[in-house]
Amino acid sequence: MAESSLLLALDYGGTKHTAALLIPGERAWLAHGRASSPPGADGAWDQAAMLSLARGLLARHPGRLAAIGVSFGGPVDAGRGVVRLSHHVPGWEETPLRDRLQTGLGAPVAVDNDANVAALGEWRFGAGQGCDSLLYITVSTGVGGGWVLGGRIWSGADGMAGEIGHNVVRPGGAPCVCGKAGCVEAEACGWGIAAKARARLGDDGRRTTDDGARLLALAGGRADGVTAQMVAQAAAEGDALAGALLDGAAEALGAGIGAALNLMNPQRVVLGGGITKSGERWWQLVRETARAHALPQTRAEIVPADLGDDAPLWGAAALAQSFMPSS
Amino acid sequence: MAESSLLLALDYGGTKHTAALLIPGERAWLAHGRASSPPGADGAWDQAAMLSLARGLLARHPGRLAAIGVSFGGPVDAGRGVVRLSHHVPGWEETPLRDRLQTGLGAPVAVDNDANVAALGEWRFGAGQGCDSLLYITVSTGVGGGWVLGGRIWSGADGMAGEIGHNVVRPGGAPCVCGKAGCVEAEACGWGIAAKARARLGDDGRRTTDDGARLLALAGGRADGVTAQMVAQAAAEGDALAGALLDGAAEALGAGIGAALNLMNPQRVVLGGGITKSGERWWQLVRETARAHALPQTRAEIVPADLGDDAPLWGAAALAQSFMPSS
Repeated sequence: MAESSLLLALDYGGTKHTAALLIPGERAWLAHGRASSPPGADGAWDQAAMLSLARGLLARHPGRLAAIGVSFGGPVDAGRGVVRLSHHVPGWEETPLRDRLQTGLGAPVAVDNDANVAALGEWRFGAGQGCDSLLYITVSTGVGGGWVLGGRIWSGADGMAGEIGHNVVRPGGAPCVCGKAGCVEAEACGWGIAAKARARLGDDGRRTTDDGARLLALAGGRADGVTAQMVAQAAAEGDALAGALLDGAAEALGAGIGAALNLMNPQRVVLGGGITKSGERWWQLVRETARAHALPQTRAEIVPADLGDDAPLWGAAALAQSFMPSS
Repeated sequence: MAESSLLLALDYGGTKHTAALLIPGERAWLAHGRASSPPGADGAWDQAAMLSLARGLLARHPGRLAAIGVSFGGPVDAGRGVVRLSHHVPGWEETPLRDRLQTGLGAPVAVDNDANVAALGEWRFGAGQGCDSLLYITVSTGVGGGWVLGGRIWSGADGMAGEIGHNVVRPGGAPCVCGKAGCVEAEACGWGIAAKARARLGDDGRRTTDDGARLLALAGGRADGVTAQMVAQAAAEGDALAGALLDGAAEALGAGIGAALNLMNPQRVVLGGGITKSGERWWQLVRETARAHALPQTRAEIVPADLGDDAPLWGAAALAQSFMPSS
């Protein structure tokens, strides 16, 4: 009997790295392993750790490694399989990750950045199943996005497609890390919501009206300890300041999505990340605002992601699967 | 010797209809013909006129009709080859144009809307040659747009992709025909520029400062006679009001383009339509504003269209060409 084929999915996630094996066409991992970078680790450390993880899995599960899919947490030139850099870990600059893995593990490799790969994961295994085109957005500390069009990742000419986070929805609004103001990210993501909350509560932590009192209590009385999660919780408990901040964040995201619907008319929009746990009112405002900004003939559904933090790993599996003749 | 193959390109342009024949792979028309709808013509008249034009061309140029490409000036369900409606001519609602032409002329047919087809025309024969992805925008009385991604039209799930004209760049700005305010179309296209100019000049046509005096003179002293072309001319002649209006229009378009670069990262943006004849300063402001809104890693060129009003007809030829085995 022929040796069975195996696919390897790798997720380089900043400081947490995951490798998983699966049999083509199956929807459960055969085995997986994780490694965390110690403080001060660099790109070389990450690469050695991942190779070791992968080889360990392969040693325990005999079979023919047919293909490898890779999600990388940073900008990637997917066409050449080269990591441009990591925003978190030094030493990744211009790393030919595809070729190194191909040499080290002896199978064909496809690499893309985590937002694109997560989009593919949701499309193939999660909330995007059965649709032809989707925009995936992760709304977390920051905002990331990726496109699947006609069943394939659309990376753009420079691997930058999906950067909805830096589209301006409130000109003159909150300052963004990109240097502009009023971007989706500054108005709608975790750091943006927290920054607004801190500014509104005042640096000294005092609050003279009822608005914000609940939020401030959740942060132990210290405005600079406020997080987006506390804003969502305080909003759910009736805090008016927190509610207004969360509403504004949902509307900013919805405006950005509405513009994306006009431009690309995807069939579905899949939203993941911690901020999407902010409750039914947040979802309602995102959907209503997107609809108000989009032309009525665009009919995209806006739905929650299915795969959570595993989306990049499942997407890496889908990338590997794309080498198989049956796919 | 085998009969030579012919391709037929059809452009249904509101009230002007064009049919053209070409030999696959060539860049010049073998023959073409035009028809104009009389007042009161409906979809049935247009269809009969175009069939008659096409049959006339085919009768004079013997050969085997291999394929037909069609540009239609209105919303189209490209997948089914069905015209949804015409905004200008009654009787087009849900017309199965692909099937009717296929039956009437005996060759395979591809149909899409004019902005998408013009995008394909510029990609194959005009300013988009040699690139993998482009956004085409026509900035004329209104704003239209179309995508070519990986060498194919991207129409979106409902045939609505490319509607950059209805993305909001100035919340609370000029009222748009779509019901929103501050859309690219209301801020940057011909009717939008003219409407702003008329409002600024005042309904009574009087103007107490030097600003706008030149513009008003061009309109024969009647503010309600001002057109976008007059605004461009007055701006070129130093009229401060006209200059400010044109600058604002260029910046609004640039902001819309910058957001599209972040979202899709196309390799090139091709701009056509009458407003793009507004001079070098207009182009400079469009490019600068787009760059300021886009992340620095997106490197799209923003270039003038090559094909002018013929872009839809050339795109229709490219659609027909896509049926040929060599393409």
